[in-house]
Amino acid sequence: MTLLVALGSGDPDPWVKQFRALLPDRPIVKLGDSYDPASIEFAMTWYHPPGSLAHYPHLKAVFSMGAGVDHLFRDTELPDVAIARVVDPDLTNRMSEYVILHALSIMRQTRRYREQQNHLQWIDDDWQPAASEVRVGVMGLGVLGSDAAQKLKHIGFKVAGWSRSPKSIDGIQCFSGDAGLSSFLARTDILVVLLPLTDETRGIINRKLLKGLARDGRVAAPSLINAGRGNLQIETELLECLDDDTLHEAVLDVFQTEPLPETSPLWTHPRVTITPHNASVSDPVAIANAIAAQIKRVEKSEPLLNTVSRAKGY
Amino acid sequence: MTLLVALGSGDPDPWVKQFRALLPDRPIVKLGDSYDPASIEFAMTWYHPPGSLAHYPHLKAVFSMGAGVDHLFRDTELPDVAIARVVDPDLTNRMSEYVILHALSIMRQTRRYREQQNHLQWIDDDWQPAASEVRVGVMGLGVLGSDAAQKLKHIGFKVAGWSRSPKSIDGIQCFSGDAGLSSFLARTDILVVLLPLTDETRGIINRKLLKGLARDGRVAAPSLINAGRGNLQIETELLECLDDDTLHEAVLDVFQTEPLPETSPLWTHPRVTITPHNASVSDPVAIANAIAAQIKRVEKSEPLLNTVSRAKGY
Repeated sequence: MTLLVALGSGDPDPWVKQFRALLPDRPIVKLGDSYDPASIEFAMTWYHPPGSLAHYPHLKAVFSMGAGVDHLFRDTELPDVAIARVVDPDLTNRMSEYVILHALSIMRQTRRYREQQNHLQWIDDDWQPAASEVRVGVMGLGVLGSDAAQKLKHIGFKVAGWSRSPKSIDGIQCFSGDAGLSSFLARTDILVVLLPLTDETRGIINRKLLKGLARDGRVAAPSLINAGRGNLQIETELLECLDDDTLHEAVLDVFQTEPLPETSPLWTHPRVTITPHNASVSDPVAIANAIAAQIKRVEKSEPLLNTVSRAKGY
Repeated sequence: MTLLVALGSGDPDPWVKQFRALLPDRPIVKLGDSYDPASIEFAMTWYHPPGSLAHYPHLKAVFSMGAGVDHLFRDTELPDVAIARVVDPDLTNRMSEYVILHALSIMRQTRRYREQQNHLQWIDDDWQPAASEVRVGVMGLGVLGSDAAQKLKHIGFKVAGWSRSPKSIDGIQCFSGDAGLSSFLARTDILVVLLPLTDETRGIINRKLLKGLARDGRVAAPSLINAGRGNLQIETELLECLDDDTLHEAVLDVFQTEPLPETSPLWTHPRVTITPHNASVSDPVAIANAIAAQIKRVEKSEPLLNTVSRAKGY
């Protein structure tokens, strides 16, 4: 019942150490160690090298270190075993904190008041919308999207959500599928994207989608917060939309290439806010705990939680 | 049963119009109009000229347009009638939105990441505190402070409150009086000030108070958000504290002199955020509604809501 730590980037040692403390009676190894392939029953991965999980005859389950699992499906030799994502309240809360911060920041025009401060200007125009006048739309209603939607609503925003398949969240107007997308966009001033990256969502944040956002709101023009995955967005189209005011402002935590290359015009665009993919940073202790709990469930023949559908890709 | 609109600044006409629509069977006048002093039963004021409410023998109640009532007590000839502040959910919600925005912004080091973006730098150090690791302290637990405290807690912050007299708020650790102040400060990373301005609170945000804030938190050093009144703070001491790192960062919506003079060093301090006293902007429609409802209560011999203690000054 050995656990293999299979990282494609980052230092595996803190993880090995953490798992040894949590699961003292089980062997913990990492890629490159010498071990019997037949002993490996579990693997924890983050962008593991494709093929590196292919030859373990007794592998029972693969755990992704984060909420996103698109990195797993890069591997065409991924073995046909159960896959689970990490769902951790700490990770969920941090994401909602990021989303709330930037939704309020867009609404309160912090960019404008900062600019005024730079010019020693005390100007107000009594045109401060309240959250109750601003419509936020959350794309992606998994654990992260649902939590963000509910917390935004608690603050006072008008919140709706969109997901591929129909969902129901207490107090949130939910749209779904291609049929629901245009109505969802047409009532959205601030679009928050927390979708998984799949073949169907790749490039979904494009000119066509952004053109569909509301133009009749109390915020200057529609705005975007993408804290999902970089490949959800087509950055050339995003920049065009910012320049022709199809999109007023963008807050981006993720990019098609990360780190964002110095040559990207996003860095210096006056209405783009960039954070270095840290909207929700994994706390190794919390995540190792969640994965150790999953391993104990399997060993007690209880069903895995938060499993991933290979067909849907999330 | 005439209502007098008594503004010391701003245009009274939209208010007169709004009240005429809401109270069509009552005369509405403004300072400078010609009317019989004996007819005035109610006055709505905002920084009215001192003495201008002194000679109305049948005046029953004075209403402040905002949550703050310190402007009334500038008038040594203020008649001895009931005084009520406006409590309006819209005003309360807007203030909480401001407080949440800036508490999250301090916690997430938006100043640092903006600076990094200016230098095309993709740097993260995995040192992102979660709200659950950050202690916010709210000074002033009236309607505004209580709402902000509860919403900050719902997002996940560790929240405590302080008020002059003991209060109890569900789920919030409450300190009070001089005896409770040092313990309150010692557990506070981000100090939010929503106190009323009285003889006892004038200048309360000074070096001595700021030195008492926590130094062992996960945010860089203690920070201040003042959205109460400018004369709560001593700006020379605040600047000294920013410069010697007694205070890491300040977000100020109010100032000892407003508009903030161009000569103030606060404008250009690299760790000060300035907003032009618009943390919570009064919506005339909502406020006129709240005051009209109070007038109707008096005429039905029901007690006034949200009355102000002349002795306490709030």
